[in-house]
Amino acid sequence: MMEVIEEKKFDKINSPNSVGLVETKYYTFAYPPKKLVLDSGVEFGPITVSYETYGELNYKKDNGILVFHALSGDAHAAGYNKIDDPKPGWWDNMIGPQKPFDTNKYFVICANVLGGCKGTTGPSSINPETKKYYGLDFPEITINDMVKVQKELIDYLKIEKLFCVAGGSMGGMLALQWIKSYPEKAEAAIIIATTPEHSAQQIAFNSIGRYAIISDPNWNNGNYYCSGNKPTTGLSVARMIGHITYLSEEAMHKKFGREYINSLKKNFSNTNKLIIKPSEIEKPIENGLNQEKKANFKKEFEVENYLHYQSESFIKRFDPNSYLYITKAIDNFNISKGYNNLATALKNVKAKCLVISFSSDWLYPKEQSLKIVKALKINNIDTTYVNLLTPYGHDSFLIDDEKFKSVVKGFLQSIRRN
Amino acid sequence: MMEVIEEKKFDKINSPNSVGLVETKYYTFAYPPKKLVLDSGVEFGPITVSYETYGELNYKKDNGILVFHALSGDAHAAGYNKIDDPKPGWWDNMIGPQKPFDTNKYFVICANVLGGCKGTTGPSSINPETKKYYGLDFPEITINDMVKVQKELIDYLKIEKLFCVAGGSMGGMLALQWIKSYPEKAEAAIIIATTPEHSAQQIAFNSIGRYAIISDPNWNNGNYYCSGNKPTTGLSVARMIGHITYLSEEAMHKKFGREYINSLKKNFSNTNKLIIKPSEIEKPIENGLNQEKKANFKKEFEVENYLHYQSESFIKRFDPNSYLYITKAIDNFNISKGYNNLATALKNVKAKCLVISFSSDWLYPKEQSLKIVKALKINNIDTTYVNLLTPYGHDSFLIDDEKFKSVVKGFLQSIRRN
Repeated sequence: MMEVIEEKKFDKINSPNSVGLVETKYYTFAYPPKKLVLDSGVEFGPITVSYETYGELNYKKDNGILVFHALSGDAHAAGYNKIDDPKPGWWDNMIGPQKPFDTNKYFVICANVLGGCKGTTGPSSINPETKKYYGLDFPEITINDMVKVQKELIDYLKIEKLFCVAGGSMGGMLALQWIKSYPEKAEAAIIIATTPEHSAQQIAFNSIGRYAIISDPNWNNGNYYCSGNKPTTGLSVARMIGHITYLSEEAMHKKFGREYINSLKKNFSNTNKLIIKPSEIEKPIENGLNQEKKANFKKEFEVENYLHYQSESFIKRFDPNSYLYITKAIDNFNISKGYNNLATALKNVKAKCLVISFSSDWLYPKEQSLKIVKALKINNIDTTYVNLLTPYGHDSFLIDDEKFKSVVKGFLQSIRRN
Repeated sequence: MMEVIEEKKFDKINSPNSVGLVETKYYTFAYPPKKLVLDSGVEFGPITVSYETYGELNYKKDNGILVFHALSGDAHAAGYNKIDDPKPGWWDNMIGPQKPFDTNKYFVICANVLGGCKGTTGPSSINPETKKYYGLDFPEITINDMVKVQKELIDYLKIEKLFCVAGGSMGGMLALQWIKSYPEKAEAAIIIATTPEHSAQQIAFNSIGRYAIISDPNWNNGNYYCSGNKPTTGLSVARMIGHITYLSEEAMHKKFGREYINSLKKNFSNTNKLIIKPSEIEKPIENGLNQEKKANFKKEFEVENYLHYQSESFIKRFDPNSYLYITKAIDNFNISKGYNNLATALKNVKAKCLVISFSSDWLYPKEQSLKIVKALKINNIDTTYVNLLTPYGHDSFLIDDEKFKSVVKGFLQSIRRN
């Protein structure tokens, strides 16, 4: 039995479409005195970047694709770090042999962003000067600062010009910033489910998440690393709000409907709609009292259970201060800042662009993608735009979807042919 | 100067379109042993209902209009309780002489719901048996229980049949429940911006609010009334989430955009878009240190400031346990519960119905109103449906809007003529 399981593990890793076992690597730069100048003017360093690469860099070094992760992502975009990892990297359906980012052709790179908590220097890192956790001593960062750090990594990898940069959500902001900041440094860009700047509503959702974190008594002004008590309640709330916005109303309703979680469910498992009066719901017995007459404000609906489960797994892997710094960078992001308009801001872009939005994405609605498309077109930049009909909401770019994959694959092939 | 202010106060109250100064009244019933049987089977009482009335009940007692408030509303729907009240009741633009609910013609009643915290018995009331605050000893309640309580009030007022019941959001659920539970007890119903049942997304938004409250260390399992420490952080988060969902993305963006709050704003007050680098934002000086290099996770964007301001005023006037009980009742509400479908559930309805949705309401989208309309039409119930083009989002029903007012006024006049 154990052997069968072991074999299955290897099957997964040895699958011809998987990049297999991968190792996270680290590159450290910006040692004093030549630190990195952040957008705030602060000189900061040393900076360690965690990154992974898949496929081989060719002799001409012109097949590099840099993919950028979203808010809660990391450098581990494809394959498995350990043979018993239950899940592969976050964009495994996109990266691998024969996949859209075909590792038989391309050298794919993914790095954790500055301010993150998965190997790249962030507020949960130790400040080498003070030997203490940065916490709120970590400087304010921008999407552009994150891009500058990844540019250092690309220089270190001796890649003069990337074949493509690509990312969804915050990753799309980084891709957009890259082609603006370094017009000569990417042949193409894939900008997915993102915006040139957050709207008031998008800021508001992030803002409540931040409020929940900084109001958590365990946050302690960012100094919780040694206390053993992370502000997990605040981070949970932030994550749960995020989760609602990542899913479409339709996807959420199809997945959970109005079903209650309780033992009765099993008896009714053939019906789509449960008809259970609140009083019939199984209540926990607390302190020996029958709680039937008391209200139960714990988990009850399937959707509540899902949100709690998702946030419980998230708080184990994510740093609350990173959540603050990264969401603030996202909210402050405005690619037109300092320009009269978006078209002027993007006038030096040279990369051929593919802009993708998803019909069911209400967090980053297609109008925001269209603003980018319009600005690129005004500048006569070769731009393809697709609004994909998907039911999944903002998370569509993370879902294994044939239409999405074929659009990305086709775009990359068309660029290669030119 | 003082005299001018005083005069202005009286102007407001003596305005020919205002119901003027009003007093909240109280009615107590369900004294032991004949308590009210709740949907859970629990027998509960005594119950005090706080209510206000505007206009005069006519001799035939057939001009009564019962309006139901939404989640955070109360019995004070119109006029002023005190001459120095800064604002009138929550539906003042709808209730008064010459207004849609014309108090020259109608006797308008509004009561705080069961489980509330504005005069009607709820978790923050004293249990007369134990002389302690109910807290979580307050029984689980449903929308139908809230309606049963208001039926007792209408009986007490000796009104055999109401001319109309009306409400928006949760108030719309109560109106729908009323015409289902008491088909003979209302000539007409106005059901606004609501749903026959919450979707998974609607449950999810409420659920995070509840999670934030019960995770607040001050919540203390609902026993906070004597501690002096209310779970205000949790309630703030709940309210802020609510607020995002009450406004349309468009309204929020028009109102706040991406503006930052700081002294620079004044200098740029003529420009729509501020071009301010994050480093230029005024930072507070803490502990004598220049915080410029530190991240600032407090209020920064206008929209954040607004949400905080709104929630700060809310936590002063609302009870966190009431928030739990009422949102749970809303989430559990399903008018079709126990029936094969919505049309069957509404087959005994007799009231002429006006169903209103708002084009920009993404919390209760028009599809949910249309479900109600369809079910009423299947039963040959005289039903008018209007989807009003408004930019304000779910809150449209609370905004002084001529189109909305004329639709309600016209509907009531048409019923009177019949």
